[in-house]
Amino acid sequence: MSEQTTLVVETRGPGLYEVTPDVSRWLHTIGAGDGLLTLLVRHTSASLLIQENADPDVRGDLQGWAERFVPRGTDPSMGWLTHTLEGPDDMPAHIRAAHLPVSLGVPVAEGRMRLGTWQGIYLWEHRDRRHRREIALHFG
Amino acid sequence: MSEQTTLVVETRGPGLYEVTPDVSRWLHTIGAGDGLLTLLVRHTSASLLIQENADPDVRGDLQGWAERFVPRGTDPSMGWLTHTLEGPDDMPAHIRAAHLPVSLGVPVAEGRMRLGTWQGIYLWEHRDRRHRREIALHFG
Amino acid sequence: MSEQTTLVVETRGPGLYEVTPDVSRWLHTIGAGDGLLTLLVRHTSASLLIQENADPDVRGDLQGWAERFVPRGTDPSMGWLTHTLEGPDDMPAHIRAAHLPVSLGVPVAEGRMRLGTWQGIYLWEHRDRRHRREIALHFG
Repeated sequence: MSEQTTLVVETRGPGLYEVTPDVSRWLHTIGAGDGLLTLLVRHTSASLLIQENADPDVRGDLQGWAERFVPRGTDPSMGWLTHTLEGPDDMPAHIRAAHLPVSLGVPVAEGRMRLGTWQGIYLWEHRDRRHRREIALHFG
Repeated sequence: MSEQTTLVVETRGPGLYEVTPDVSRWLHTIGAGDGLLTLLVRHTSASLLIQENADPDVRGDLQGWAERFVPRGTDPSMGWLTHTLEGPDDMPAHIRAAHLPVSLGVPVAEGRMRLGTWQGIYLWEHRDRRHRREIALHFG
Repeated sequence: MSEQTTLVVETRGPGLYEVTPDVSRWLHTIGAGDGLLTLLVRHTSASLLIQENADPDVRGDLQGWAERFVPRGTDPSMGWLTHTLEGPDDMPAHIRAAHLPVSLGVPVAEGRMRLGTWQGIYLWEHRDRRHRREIALHFG
C-alpha cells in the first residue's frame, strides 16, 4: 500500500499553522491501518514542526525566538547577507528553514498517528506575504 | 511487514541518553531483514539525535552548547518569554526541541541499522526533572 | 520492494554539495514507481539539507550563517569547548550537524521525488579537510 496526496495550506504571514486535523482526516479517508506516514514541505522558506498544541503562548514564543535567532535582513547584525534581492524576509526564511524540519516520519497504528498527548503538527511560515504552501503526504 | 513498539527512557535531567543497543535488540527480536526503521519521540521538550558515540566530551559539549544557544528563562536575555508558568526550563526546552530532530529514518540491511561507525542514537532530555520518555518505533 | 544503496560524495572543505541528480538517477536505475525514499548521512560532522537550488548566493549565505552561528574553536566565544583534540573545526562541526538534518524522507511518485520546484538535496560538509562521505539510500 502506497497512498499519496498533497495538502495545501494558505498562509497569511509568519507563524505556526496547525495541520493535525487535516492529516488525520486524510488517513481516515484512505482507510489507513498500521504503517508509516511521511510529510515533506515542498518549499525552502517554510518548515514543518511537531510541537505543543496546548498553550498558544508556546507558539508565540517560538515565533519570537525565530525572529531573534535569525533577524530580518534589515537588522544590522545581518548586514553580511548577499542574497537580498527578494526582500529582507527572504534569506532569513531560508536560514530558519535550514534549521527546522523539512520532512517528518510518523508511525501510524490502526489509522491513528502515534503522536504524544501534547503534540500537534504545524506548517511554519517564514515569509511576510501570503503564500499557498504544499505538503506532500505519503502513507505506506 | 509493519512492526511497531514503544521504547521507554527514564531520564534524570538534561543530557543525552543512548538508545542504540535497545533499538538494535528490538530489530533482532522482530527478525527484521531489509527495510526502514523510523523513530518518533512523543514529547515536545525532548529530542532525538544521531551523534558521535566515541568521546563522551562531545556529548558534554553538545549540552554546553544547548545551554548557551537557548539559555534558561531566568537568563536576562530570555526576559521576553511569555510561557513561563511551567518553570524556567520549560519554554527553552520547547525551543531547543524545535531545532532538533523529533523523528529519524534509518535504513536497515539484514537486520542491522546502516549507521556510520561513530554514530549512536540518543534521546536528548531538555527538562530538569525526571521524566519517563517514550519513543515510537516502526519497522517496515 | 526494499532497495538500498550507498551514495559517495567526495568533499573539499565546508559547503553544500548537490546530490539531487545522483539520487534521481538511482531511482531510475532501480525502476522506482510510487514509494518512499529515505536518506541517511553516515557521519557526525556532515549533514543533509533540502534547500534552494536556484541562486548560488543562498548557498553562500547559508555557509556564512553556519560560521557565525557556531564559530570555529579558535573564536574566543567558543573557549568553553572541551573536545578540541581533533582540531578547531571538529566540535563546531558536531554542533552544526546536531542542528541540521541527518535523515530525510521524500515521497516518490512514478519514479520522481516530490520535491518542490526550487528544492535540491545537498550534503553539507562541516570539516576543513577532504572527506569521503557516505549517504545510505533506501526506497520502499
